[in-house]
Amino acid sequence: SPVALAVQRGVRRLFAGLGQVTVTELTLASGRRADVVALAPDGRITVVEVKSCLADFRTDGKWQDYRAYCDRLFFAVTDDFPQEVLPEATGLIVADQYGAAVLREAPLHPLPGARRKEVTLRFARAAASRLHAAFDPEGARGII
Amino acid sequence: SPVALAVQRGVRRLFAGLGQVTVTELTLASGRRADVVALAPDGRITVVEVKSCLADFRTDGKWQDYRAYCDRLFFAVTDDFPQEVLPEATGLIVADQYGAAVLREAPLHPLPGARRKEVTLRFARAAASRLHAAFDPEGARGII
Repeated sequence: SPVALAVQRGVRRLFAGLGQVTVTELTLASGRRADVVALAPDGRITVVEVKSCLADFRTDGKWQDYRAYCDRLFFAVTDDFPQEVLPEATGLIVADQYGAAVLREAPLHPLPGARRKEVTLRFARAAASRLHAAFDPEGARGII
Repeated sequence: SPVALAVQRGVRRLFAGLGQVTVTELTLASGRRADVVALAPDGRITVVEVKSCLADFRTDGKWQDYRAYCDRLFFAVTDDFPQEVLPEATGLIVADQYGAAVLREAPLHPLPGARRKEVTLRFARAAASRLHAAFDPEGARGII
């Protein structure tokens, strides 16, 4: 949705300002797709789930599944979202298309080394394959 | 140079066909910049140094430095390059803008785990920051 895309854009700007790179729509080993994944200079991985409205949050629900693939988990919403429904065990970001702010820090639950390696590799492959496809769509076929 | 860019394009196509993603112009921890770096599904890292002509090869010379940052090292050249000057301890790829072929496999010299982690993170950050900049140049500022 346009709202979700605006929130996503603002979230990426927030992390860029913190020196963290991001990819969107990253499919994890579980098959679930994370809305935004950020990678810090020290290798820490953050997942941000974007919720454009209450219905969007209620129809998802399985946010616990993302925790196994990141060191920190946030929800990101617009400023008119009813924040009280969001789980306190996650971080909270409020965003629009121009930027975002952290309203509640996410608890740290460090990934085991093997899992971190797997998610980092997945992140690297997604980013590089999309970048290659942007420059040479025909040549990149087969890795997307 | 246009020749180097054509070779680079063909090399990326070769690796894409093998299921490996690539980035170009990756600055390594040593400060040297690798022309093409490929990342395999299993995490193996290959560096490909592109040489557009003999003079280009002769003025570089420090190819040994790249070995410390990859599991395999190749040179990639056009088909009229004098191949006999290239070191036998490296792999050899002949390429044009449409594709490439491996004429000699590169010996495997597996990276230590910590180094592999560092290069993979660097690869991921370069690819994601460039991709972000392509979509939102202003928002990605500060991570490029």
